[in-house]
Amino acid sequence: MKAEIISIGNELLSGYENTNASWLAGQLYENGISVQKIHTIADNKNAIAHCLEECIQNADIVISTGGLGPTKDDITKQVLCKYFKCGLKFSHSAYGHIEKLFKLRGLVVTQTNKKQAEIPEMAKAIPNIMGTAPGLWFDIENKTYIALPGVPFEMMFMLENFIIPKLKSKYKLPLLYSRTILTHGVGESFLADMLQDWEKSIPKNIKLAYLPTPGIVKLQLSGVENGEGLTETTIDNLVNTLKDVIPQFIFGHDKQTLQEIVGGQLIANEATISVAESCTGGYISHLITSCPGSSEYFKGSIIAYSNKVKTKQLNIDSSLIEKHGAVSKEVAVAMALNLRELLGSTYSIAATGIAGPGGGTKDKPVGTVWLAVASPSNYKAEKFLFGENRNINIKKAALTALNMMRKMIEK
Amino acid sequence: MKAEIISIGNELLSGYENTNASWLAGQLYENGISVQKIHTIADNKNAIAHCLEECIQNADIVISTGGLGPTKDDITKQVLCKYFKCGLKFSHSAYGHIEKLFKLRGLVVTQTNKKQAEIPEMAKAIPNIMGTAPGLWFDIENKTYIALPGVPFEMMFMLENFIIPKLKSKYKLPLLYSRTILTHGVGESFLADMLQDWEKSIPKNIKLAYLPTPGIVKLQLSGVENGEGLTETTIDNLVNTLKDVIPQFIFGHDKQTLQEIVGGQLIANEATISVAESCTGGYISHLITSCPGSSEYFKGSIIAYSNKVKTKQLNIDSSLIEKHGAVSKEVAVAMALNLRELLGSTYSIAATGIAGPGGGTKDKPVGTVWLAVASPSNYKAEKFLFGENRNINIKKAALTALNMMRKMIEK
Repeated sequence: MKAEIISIGNELLSGYENTNASWLAGQLYENGISVQKIHTIADNKNAIAHCLEECIQNADIVISTGGLGPTKDDITKQVLCKYFKCGLKFSHSAYGHIEKLFKLRGLVVTQTNKKQAEIPEMAKAIPNIMGTAPGLWFDIENKTYIALPGVPFEMMFMLENFIIPKLKSKYKLPLLYSRTILTHGVGESFLADMLQDWEKSIPKNIKLAYLPTPGIVKLQLSGVENGEGLTETTIDNLVNTLKDVIPQFIFGHDKQTLQEIVGGQLIANEATISVAESCTGGYISHLITSCPGSSEYFKGSIIAYSNKVKTKQLNIDSSLIEKHGAVSKEVAVAMALNLRELLGSTYSIAATGIAGPGGGTKDKPVGTVWLAVASPSNYKAEKFLFGENRNINIKKAALTALNMMRKMIEK
Repeated sequence: MKAEIISIGNELLSGYENTNASWLAGQLYENGISVQKIHTIADNKNAIAHCLEECIQNADIVISTGGLGPTKDDITKQVLCKYFKCGLKFSHSAYGHIEKLFKLRGLVVTQTNKKQAEIPEMAKAIPNIMGTAPGLWFDIENKTYIALPGVPFEMMFMLENFIIPKLKSKYKLPLLYSRTILTHGVGESFLADMLQDWEKSIPKNIKLAYLPTPGIVKLQLSGVENGEGLTETTIDNLVNTLKDVIPQFIFGHDKQTLQEIVGGQLIANEATISVAESCTGGYISHLITSCPGSSEYFKGSIIAYSNKVKTKQLNIDSSLIEKHGAVSKEVAVAMALNLRELLGSTYSIAATGIAGPGGGTKDKPVGTVWLAVASPSNYKAEKFLFGENRNINIKKAALTALNMMRKMIEK
């Protein structure tokens, strides 16, 4: 089953990120629908019509997002009516939903919003529980074309709750088996060198992909299941041998995040955590608290950007800062130990460094970061030299700190 | 001058975000090169060759990213050699750079990395100061095809420092004039209704786009400059009249962020800031410290997730929490006032709420957030009801808090 995605929006061609397409592609992929191509095009009648024609010719399932909103630059519906040679009809169910939603929010339906209930006659409306513009489903013999609004959470809700189940009942979708191994602390090309022999053991029907992001390289193995579980067994075996080749770099698998893994460890140990941040400026705490349920184990943090906050709120001896500098092993360790004590948490993390672009010296250039972790019986500190880019330094420092914490708890 | 972008990578079709394409499109757009289409395709020889042919036919400038890395799934160079009917040559300048980079990092060049210095005979190498794989520049009469590696900061550096200047000397690029107005606190469809009359005053040669993101709707006006500054004058006038129609919602323009604007206000007033965060879990502090130079005005934060941290580190009276609950006006105000005092900052921000998915009650459902801001002479608190999604709640709360702070400092 082959799919193509059409992302409509001038903004996507002038600098706006197309998060819808990547999310949609991920969802389809997981459900055994292989996306061949993503087309990102302008809010332009000819471009939409041309792209639609090409996609419906090349793919079984075509999904477009964007151009269904209430503002003047949205023209997808007009193009669809022309393409499918039909007019617009007023959908009472869609309008009923718009009215209900507005009432709930204490608002009156405007003329602009009322127009959102008009849909092409050839289409079935897909209910949009989270917003106003309904989705559109077109059956073109054994092919399917689906038009969705561009608002991410509206589109997501419709895909998960209506479209995937509907596609599953219309088509017999193949079962895809896929596993992703997550590594930290090693670059893509070094991994590739280390894995040369292991890669030779991968059969042709299994695909390997290297997916690098700042601080993390993901290794994804995937293949279509033939019905006898052979693909699953092969991939599982490959994962197991991989774990023997690079055990020191693997921290998790599939959609796990370091913050989720550390959170899981803390819950399993009935333990708590706190964070003392300087150069990471709240990002470690943000990662930890982005996990639902983190209030179970996260006590809190002190972000000590100024030295005065380090001395006053974190009880760091000012002579320690004078002697070793704020970016030093001694200060990192003191931050971790003092905060653990102050907040009464089982574990603590501390980060102090020079995120840049300013503040670097010859001895301590931009990118220098000291990280420390502490447990009831132990502590560990390590120095890192990341790079020149402030935001990448913050991200890498945060992930590295979480990984140090993970390793300490694991022991 | 029309451009098309080709993003190569299986991962981009199975859920990975294509940040390269949007960044590239933004850069080209700002330099007067209009991107017609972004093609996201697989690491597949046929797909690449087919797409390349289509793009070179339809556009003047074609830029591809991805498929130049050292791992086995990278095949772009092979396809290029076939397409341009040439072999590979060893680039001594590219290899010299790889050797130098590895020496700097104390590493030995591996065989895999050495192969990155091989480039198609028809291409000129574009130096990659930040990494190992050089970019490739092909002149096809008056058209240009450029292949770049997929690593974001490598690709970015090459585009800004080599490619844009080289394109400017090859082509006469039109001057694009564009202004973006940033609004907070109002949804897209309500803006559209409020702006109906104003939109009527926009001439045909000026384009308006609504760009909604969680918490912020951007309004972008753009047009090609005819050489007499008329487009600039027209757009500037439209922006000025817009400011009269919706003054209460506008907080900035173009690439500004709320955290930058607040940072600028603080520097101008020689003032400092601190943050007391509960439900936002460090995200407000992260936004503030993502700005270079924020150590000038950011003192630090206390993230008080547990009530004990609220009472002990933020000196909140436990009876206050008992009486009103941790998510209340009283606690939000006390957090802001106490932290300002504790950290000795000019201003402070506080956030307490229920980010979700758990923790909601009938009186205080998920999404309920109390925000407070304090100055030396004043404080203000406000209650918000965001939504169901934890991460969107955190983002909206943080942006709303920063906007409250901006308004308070402005006064």
